[in-house]
Amino acid sequence: MGVAPDVGSDILKDLKKRVEEGIPSGISVSFVEFEGPELVIYTEEPKKFADNGDIIRNLAKDLRKRIVVRPDPKVLVDPEKAIEEIKRIVPEEGGINDAYFDPDTGEVLIEADKPGLVIGKYGETLREISRNIGWTPKVVRAPPLPSSMIKNIRSYLRAEKDSRKEFLRRVGQKIHREPTARDQWIRVTALGGCREVGRSSFLLSTPETRILIDCGVNVSSDNNISPYLYIPEVSPIDQIDAVVLTHAHLDHAGLVPLLFKYGYDGPIYATPPTRDLMVLLQLDYIDIASKEGSKIPYNSAMVREALKHTIVLNYGEVTDIAPDVKLTLHNAGHILGSAVAHFHIGQGMYNIAFTGDIKYERTLLFDPTVNTFPRLEALVIEATYGGNRDFQPSRSEAESKLQSTIKKTIERGGKVIIPAFAVGRSQEVMIVLENAVRKGALDPVPVYLDGMILEATAIHTAYPEYLNQNLRNLIFHKGLNPFLSDLFIQVDSVSKRQEVIQSEESCVILATSGMLNGGPVMEYLRGLCHDERNTLIFVGYQAEGTLGRRIQKGWKEIPFSREGRTETIKIRLEVVTIDGFSGHSDRNQLLNYVRRMRPQPSKILINHGEERKCLEFANTLRKKIRREVVVPKNLETVRLL
Amino acid sequence: MGVAPDVGSDILKDLKKRVEEGIPSGISVSFVEFEGPELVIYTEEPKKFADNGDIIRNLAKDLRKRIVVRPDPKVLVDPEKAIEEIKRIVPEEGGINDAYFDPDTGEVLIEADKPGLVIGKYGETLREISRNIGWTPKVVRAPPLPSSMIKNIRSYLRAEKDSRKEFLRRVGQKIHREPTARDQWIRVTALGGCREVGRSSFLLSTPETRILIDCGVNVSSDNNISPYLYIPEVSPIDQIDAVVLTHAHLDHAGLVPLLFKYGYDGPIYATPPTRDLMVLLQLDYIDIASKEGSKIPYNSAMVREALKHTIVLNYGEVTDIAPDVKLTLHNAGHILGSAVAHFHIGQGMYNIAFTGDIKYERTLLFDPTVNTFPRLEALVIEATYGGNRDFQPSRSEAESKLQSTIKKTIERGGKVIIPAFAVGRSQEVMIVLENAVRKGALDPVPVYLDGMILEATAIHTAYPEYLNQNLRNLIFHKGLNPFLSDLFIQVDSVSKRQEVIQSEESCVILATSGMLNGGPVMEYLRGLCHDERNTLIFVGYQAEGTLGRRIQKGWKEIPFSREGRTETIKIRLEVVTIDGFSGHSDRNQLLNYVRRMRPQPSKILINHGEERKCLEFANTLRKKIRREVVVPKNLETVRLL
Repeated sequence: MGVAPDVGSDILKDLKKRVEEGIPSGISVSFVEFEGPELVIYTEEPKKFADNGDIIRNLAKDLRKRIVVRPDPKVLVDPEKAIEEIKRIVPEEGGINDAYFDPDTGEVLIEADKPGLVIGKYGETLREISRNIGWTPKVVRAPPLPSSMIKNIRSYLRAEKDSRKEFLRRVGQKIHREPTARDQWIRVTALGGCREVGRSSFLLSTPETRILIDCGVNVSSDNNISPYLYIPEVSPIDQIDAVVLTHAHLDHAGLVPLLFKYGYDGPIYATPPTRDLMVLLQLDYIDIASKEGSKIPYNSAMVREALKHTIVLNYGEVTDIAPDVKLTLHNAGHILGSAVAHFHIGQGMYNIAFTGDIKYERTLLFDPTVNTFPRLEALVIEATYGGNRDFQPSRSEAESKLQSTIKKTIERGGKVIIPAFAVGRSQEVMIVLENAVRKGALDPVPVYLDGMILEATAIHTAYPEYLNQNLRNLIFHKGLNPFLSDLFIQVDSVSKRQEVIQSEESCVILATSGMLNGGPVMEYLRGLCHDERNTLIFVGYQAEGTLGRRIQKGWKEIPFSREGRTETIKIRLEVVTIDGFSGHSDRNQLLNYVRRMRPQPSKILINHGEERKCLEFANTLRKKIRREVVVPKNLETVRLL
Repeated sequence: MGVAPDVGSDILKDLKKRVEEGIPSGISVSFVEFEGPELVIYTEEPKKFADNGDIIRNLAKDLRKRIVVRPDPKVLVDPEKAIEEIKRIVPEEGGINDAYFDPDTGEVLIEADKPGLVIGKYGETLREISRNIGWTPKVVRAPPLPSSMIKNIRSYLRAEKDSRKEFLRRVGQKIHREPTARDQWIRVTALGGCREVGRSSFLLSTPETRILIDCGVNVSSDNNISPYLYIPEVSPIDQIDAVVLTHAHLDHAGLVPLLFKYGYDGPIYATPPTRDLMVLLQLDYIDIASKEGSKIPYNSAMVREALKHTIVLNYGEVTDIAPDVKLTLHNAGHILGSAVAHFHIGQGMYNIAFTGDIKYERTLLFDPTVNTFPRLEALVIEATYGGNRDFQPSRSEAESKLQSTIKKTIERGGKVIIPAFAVGRSQEVMIVLENAVRKGALDPVPVYLDGMILEATAIHTAYPEYLNQNLRNLIFHKGLNPFLSDLFIQVDSVSKRQEVIQSEESCVILATSGMLNGGPVMEYLRGLCHDERNTLIFVGYQAEGTLGRRIQKGWKEIPFSREGRTETIKIRLEVVTIDGFSGHSDRNQLLNYVRRMRPQPSKILINHGEERKCLEFANTLRKKIRREVVVPKNLETVRLL
C-alpha cells in the first residue's frame, strides 16, 4: 500500500486551495502539511485564526479532517521573550514549570501544575498566548507525583522530534490517499486471545486497509505466548496500516515492540495514559524476563521505537486512520486510559466496536464503560467473567470484605499481602484504603507499595481527566488527591523489602505481579507464607497456569524457584479471594452492557475468556437478546460484510 | 518455503543408501532423483527390478514413497531396434500406433489402441518390454475417436520434457523436505463458491503448507468472476505449495491459468481426464470471451503453462504433495475424471475430503461417488441441490421424459435443442439417446453435436477406465462403443449450422453452452425460437443471472446481443425442464451420501449452492445427523484443528 510522494503532494495542493476558499479573505496560508491524522495549516497570521475559533471548526467540518494551525516559522517570537509573555498571561496558580520550544512545528510545550488555567475558558488563554508569541502553545500536566517514566517519555519524544515529524508526514499522506479498492468487504481475523485469556490480537481488514487491534503477550503460557503474527494475513508485518491499542496491560499491548522488530513502521493509536503505561509495563516485562532468565522477545530499543510511533488520541476524538476507516476511542472503565475502539468503515458503510477489557460499573477510579455510539453493526466483546456462574459481589460488598479481612489480620498481629497488577487493581485498592482510613472505617495502617505501583500511580496523577467525576472533583475542587496520602510508603530497595518482611509491625503490602508469576510479591510470599497470622488476599483474576490460580485452588506446598534453585514452600497463611475488585465486568454487567447498548449491534463476537465461558456467554446472548453471536477460534476469520 | 538445493541432495543421499539397503544385494543403483511426488531409481540393471515386482512394492512400503525404476542411460537399446522389439512382444491386437523415446527419462511412450494388451496381466508384458529394451515403457490409449486436443497435449508435453523434468525435480525436493513448523493447526479459507455457485476455490493451510483446491470462474457474473485471489492468505501466489483440482468444469478450474500469470510456478494435481478436459474448456473459454469481446483474463500461453505444471494422479493413488500432506483422489461421479479430494495431514493427525461436485447415483456414464475413506474428520460438501425442495426424479424417469419429449417434438415436425455443457451432460444425453435407439424405444433421429461436444466425447473415449463398469464391459468385451454410433453428426462449420437450422428435418441438437450464456446454442435458439413445433429442453442446472434461468422462469421476450447489436427475440418454442440428468446429487442423494459415509466426519462444511440452499442443507444435516455444520462465507476462515 505504498504511496508515491507526488500523490500526497497533489492531495495537499488541492487541500491548500480548499483551505484558502474556506477561510475569510485576507488571511494568508503559507503551506499545508499532513501530520499523522491531522492537517496542519502554516500561516504568517496565526492571530487571525486564533481570534476566531469558528474558522478552524468550520474548516474541519468542511474538509472532514482534523485541523491544526501553526505559525509560519517567519513570525515566531524569540523563545526568551516568549516565555516571559506566557508567564505574564497565565495566572500564577497555573504553576508553569517549564516550556520547550520546537522551531520545526512552531509549538511550545508548556508543563504546568494546572493545565486548565493555561488553556482558559474555551481555550481563550491558549489563543491569547498564541496571538502574542506566534508559537502554538500545547499544554501538559506536570505530574503531582514525580514520574520518571513520564519525564523520560516526554524528553525522548522531544529528542526524536525530527524523525517523528517525518513519520507523521508519511502517515498523514497514507491516511489521506484516495481509496483504490474496488471490492467491498470487512473481515475480522482472530490472532490471539480467542477462547483464552492472554495474547489478545485481532486483525480488522478491508480491501484497502489492515488494522491490528491489540498485540498482547500470554505471560502465563510457556509455549503460546504470542499471537499468530506469522500467518499470511499479517505478514509481512509492514503491510499493516495501523495498530490500535485498547489499553496498556501486557495481554493487550505486551508484544507491540515486537512488531517493530519484525519490520512494522506504522502508527500506533492509543490514549495518552495507555502510551505511558504501555512503556512502563513493557520495560518491566523485559526486566522481569531478564531476571528470570526467560526468553525476552524484544529489547528496550524496540520499546522506544513503539513509543516513537505512537499517536495519542483522547476519548471521543473521531480520527481518520486510513482512507476508509475512522477510529474513536471511548472510556472502557477497566484501567487508566482503557478504551473501547470504535471503527467507522467506509462512508457510513459499517461500524464495529472492540471493547477490549471493560468494567460496566462505576468504580472509585473510573466511570462505567461507554455503550452508546452514533452507529454500530458489530460488537466484539470480552467474556472474562462470561461463564454461567460468574457473578461478582458489588463494589461496596468487596470493599467491606477487604476492610474486615485487613482488620482481622491486624488484630492477630499479621501482615496482609495483596498481589496486584501495578496498573489498575493497585490504584483501586489504594483508593479504597485511603477512603476507609479517611472516613474512620479502618485504623491507619502502613501500606507498602512494591514493584512499579508508585510509578504507575504517578502516571494516574498526571491524567486526572481520565479518572471519574468524583475523583476529579476531589482533586480539582477540594485539592485532595488521595494518591498523595502519607499512608502509602514506597519500597525502593531489597533491604527495605527485607525490613518490611521481618518487622513485627502489622501492615498491608501491595506488590506486583498480580498473579504471583514473578515480581517482588514473590519475596513477600516466600517470607510471610509460613505464618498463620498473615493473609494473602487475591483481588484480581488468576489465570489458568499461574501460581496464583494454584494457591487459590488450595495447593499447600508450592515449588518455588529462586536464584536458580527450586525449594518447596508451605502455604500456612490465610488465603482469601475477594471478588468484586476486578476491572472486568461480571456476567450480569456484561449482559447489561449489551442489553443497554445503543444502537443494538446485529452481530456479536466474543473473545477474551476461557473457552467454556465464551461459549456460555454466547448461548446466554443468543437466548436473551436473540442476536447472531460468533465465538471465533484463534486463526479463524469472520466476515462482517 | 524455499528449499536450499543441498537440503534436497542430503535427503537424496540418505534415500539412495536406504534403497541400496532395501534391495537384494547384487543390484546396483546408479543414482536416485525426485520427480514430482515420485522417487526415481536409476540402475544399470532395470531387468533385475523388472523380474521381481515385489522389490519395488517393498521399497515403496519401506520408504513410504512412490517409486519408479528407470534404466541408467548407459543401458538403453537403440530406438529403432527397441521399437521392433516392442512390436514383437505386444500382440498385434494391441494396435501400437506410435512410440516416443525420451532419452532423459529413459522412457518410451507407447500409444496403443488397447493399452491393456501392452500392459499384460499384472504388468507382465510391460516388464518384458523393459527387460528387452532397457527403456521404461509407458502406455497411453490412442483415442478411438480422434482427439486433436489429446494429440496436442501429448505432443506439447513431449516438446517441453526438459523444463518439465527440471520442474518435477524441484517439486520433488520441496515435497520431500523435512517439515519445519512448530505449531500444529489446520485451516480452510473460502476464496470463492461459498453461498454461491461459480468460482469455486478453497485454501487448505497448515503452518507448513498451503494448498489451493480448485480455482474456478463465475461465468454467469460480470463483476465477481474470480475467487478472492488477492487476499493475503493467497498472495503472493507463489507461496502456494500445490493446486488440486476436483474436476475440469470452468467453475472449478477455469482460472487455473491465471495463477501462472500471477506468478505461480508449482504443481497442479488432477486426474488425466481432468487435465485434458481442463485445457479444452479453458481454450474454449478464451475463444468465447474473445468472440464476445469480453475481458479475457489470460491467454493460451498461460493455459499451456498450467498444462506443463500438471501432475496426473489416478483414483486411489495415495500421493505425498507436501511434507505434511498426502492427497488421494476418488471417483466423484460428476463428470469424466471428477474427483473427491481426500487430504491426510500430518502423521495421522487429521483428514479432510473436499467433494467438489458429486453424483451419488449410478448413471449411464459413471459409478456413484465414493464415500468410504480410511479416515475422515472433516468433509466439505457441495449443496447445489441442497434446498428443502430440491428433490430430483430418478434417472429412469428423466430418461423416459426425455424420450417422450423428443418423440412428441418429432411427431409435430419440430426440432429439439438441448443446451449442454460440452463435458458431462452432453455425453449423458448421447448415451441415453444411443441406448434408446439401440433398444427400439426411440426411432433413429439425427443428433447434431455443436460446440466442443465431439472433442469432449473423444476425450471420454480415451479414458474408458474412468467410465462405469457397464460401459467398460460394453466397450472392452462387447466391442461396442456407444459414443461411436453413427446417430451422432458433428456440426463443424457455420454453413452446416445454418443448414441444420433451416432444414425441415426433425432432429436433436446438442449444443453448448449449457446455460445459454454464449456458444453455438445461441444461434440455434435465435433461429428456432419462433416456431412452436420446436422444443428447448433444459437438462442441467441454470445459474441465477443466466439467460437459461430467465427462459426457465418464463421470460417470453429476450434481449439478444449479436454482432454488436441488440435485438429482441420472442420465445415461442416449447420450454421443458427435465430434472434428473444433473451431474449433481439431489437433496436426498446428498443426505444419503453423508449418512452412509464411513467413517462419519465430525465436522461438515457446506459450499457450492445458493445461500438459502446451503443454509437449508446445513439445518437438515444438523437435525438429521447431529454434526457440527458450518456454512462459511467467501473470505472466511474456519479452523479445523
